Amino acid sequence: MSHYFDFNAGCRMRPEVINRVTELLREDCGNPSSMHSPGRRARALLEEARDSTAALFGVAPDEIIFTSGATESNNTALRGAMALDPALQLLVSSSEHASISAVADYLEGNGRQVRRFTIDAAGHLDLELIGRASREARSLLALSLANGDTGHLLELDKLCVLLAAGGGFHLDLAQAVGRIALRLPAAVTTAAASCHKYGGPLGCGVLIKRGGTDLAPLMAGGGQERGVRAGTENIAAIAGAGLAARLARAELDEEASRLKGLTSLLWSLICELPSIRRLSPDDGLPGTLTVALGDVPADVMIAGLDLEEFAVSSGSACEAGSPEPPATAVALGLEPPWLHGVIRMSMGWENSRDDVLALAQSFNAVAGRASFAA
Amino acid sequence: MSHYFDFNAGCRMRPEVINRVTELLREDCGNPSSMHSPGRRARALLEEARDSTAALFGVAPDEIIFTSGATESNNTALRGAMALDPALQLLVSSSEHASISAVADYLEGNGRQVRRFTIDAAGHLDLELIGRASREARSLLALSLANGDTGHLLELDKLCVLLAAGGGFHLDLAQAVGRIALRLPAAVTTAAASCHKYGGPLGCGVLIKRGGTDLAPLMAGGGQERGVRAGTENIAAIAGAGLAARLARAELDEEASRLKGLTSLLWSLICELPSIRRLSPDDGLPGTLTVALGDVPADVMIAGLDLEEFAVSSGSACEAGSPEPPATAVALGLEPPWLHGVIRMSMGWENSRDDVLALAQSFNAVAGRASFAA
Repeated sequence: MSHYFDFNAGCRMRPEVINRVTELLREDCGNPSSMHSPGRRARALLEEARDSTAALFGVAPDEIIFTSGATESNNTALRGAMALDPALQLLVSSSEHASISAVADYLEGNGRQVRRFTIDAAGHLDLELIGRASREARSLLALSLANGDTGHLLELDKLCVLLAAGGGFHLDLAQAVGRIALRLPAAVTTAAASCHKYGGPLGCGVLIKRGGTDLAPLMAGGGQERGVRAGTENIAAIAGAGLAARLARAELDEEASRLKGLTSLLWSLICELPSIRRLSPDDGLPGTLTVALGDVPADVMIAGLDLEEFAVSSGSACEAGSPEPPATAVALGLEPPWLHGVIRMSMGWENSRDDVLALAQSFNAVAGRASFAA
Repeated sequence: MSHYFDFNAGCRMRPEVINRVTELLREDCGNPSSMHSPGRRARALLEEARDSTAALFGVAPDEIIFTSGATESNNTALRGAMALDPALQLLVSSSEHASISAVADYLEGNGRQVRRFTIDAAGHLDLELIGRASREARSLLALSLANGDTGHLLELDKLCVLLAAGGGFHLDLAQAVGRIALRLPAAVTTAAASCHKYGGPLGCGVLIKRGGTDLAPLMAGGGQERGVRAGTENIAAIAGAGLAARLARAELDEEASRLKGLTSLLWSLICELPSIRRLSPDDGLPGTLTVALGDVPADVMIAGLDLEEFAVSSGSACEAGSPEPPATAVALGLEPPWLHGVIRMSMGWENSRDDVLALAQSFNAVAGRASFAA
């Protein structure tokens, strides 16, 4: 029996959602644009999922666009807004997920103005500086609410009062949804999430587009999703995502405090290793514990824990296998050898107290065996 | 028990594929970019599916990019090629699926040169004219191999010898794959398909990018799919698509001739209605029979057949619900009242001879009752 501690890379689908998706795959589910009965049934499932998803995100159903994932949602929001306004500059932090940072690079490569802001050693952005930049030139700001590498949270309310209105504010909710309560301030014009990050199926994402916000479509075609996202809707996955949203919303408070407890427990059990630092803040994303070891390289820890059936990572899976350390660790000012010893343990609905006890025991054992000093 | 005759809008998933996808949803399937065991297992499944898919399309595995569907594949190929060459003009036919025609409209709206070619009353494009246009200016040509509205097939080999090299040729295979044998000539630089059109899951598409062809990415991010398509891979769906590709390839010849037989049978059973014309050619896509009725509106036929549990349509689901008649019927020169009486019956693995006999009986009965003349 393996222990999965990589929920920030991809949450396990909830069993209820697997059952629902399986049931729909076996049913007569048509194309929701078709006029016949299977088509009308598909349309009803689609709109039911839209309602549940809207409730989880605290927005209106007609602000929800289903996409193939957060990467597509981030690309659509950023490229879609920038395409409509040639003078708009893009403001991003330098520790964003690749689906924001690579879009920023792409736009910059195409001659667009991009400004990047770094986090300080405590993991915070200089909000005053960002606010000032938004007032100096018409700007689209793109930030994640929760950093997937370390679990640092954006001070959203504080930021919103500093921002100039008009240019737009895109919020990446991929790591936050289902883990902290969401309440999107009016300044947020678009937002993105991946349904597989809250127990839903892979291949399904959410783009929130607030009333009055226009986006050039990333995918043109059959006019689905009110013209914002063409392509036949993946009904079984979307209906599964709707169920995942209902479950996540119902359990949010309880689950957040449970994950917070597990995070503290895990840290308390490994913090006495001779050469360990905690990178995740105390008040960060419930369930994410990122540490740096000064005496064991991350790949040795990951491989050692894998042999004992624990799946952990060093940061975003989208950057795994790359020789570079996680972007956020670099931005936090971490230096070698710590920089090469970053381990992220991220938990979700599947992880129990027993799991955490078992991981801590193996973590201490593998670190002890592998330490340079030993 | 309902009878589904709308395979061109969305093929039913094969039962073997449903079982495989369900099995994988219940398994420990990770993020293929992760270094741990669930991640490595996901990577192996991904590459196995790529091999099977490449075999169905007759291309090399490294020419296969998995996307979210044919709409995304068409958008990526067209916008990706046009973005890299500001002088490139786009050549399209005026009876393409919305995911090509809407991209052409979008590019034209952004100041790009687009030329459109119409089909004649027999459903054929003027290949000489297209060839000449490709020689007059550096051009990307985008066409579908099989027209989804009527089943007309492109004379691919004849066209290829007329084309100027260099600009690129994108082929939409969405309706053709699994129904006719594919052999992509060297002139074809990119191609698109939807796995749900050959018995695979929704939410999974294929983009073929031949060696030496460059595309600007539509979705930037984590560098998945060799940088052409970012986003966490939907492993269960991709593995299901791989199985669907294996099944489709194994049965291709037999299935094509079976569907051809059913198409002829269906036509032979309804062709004596007092006011009916066949729009699908005799040598078109096996399984597609599109007809026009001169004395019954399409929506009356669709609703009438729906009550008897037959799902048929008037054309592309992506245009359903719109008051416009199918684009291909307009291009074929059809006029009212025929233009408003277009019915498409499209078959796949699920349809049997008994199904066809039952549909023909209901078709004749509904048409008889609803006829203006009656």
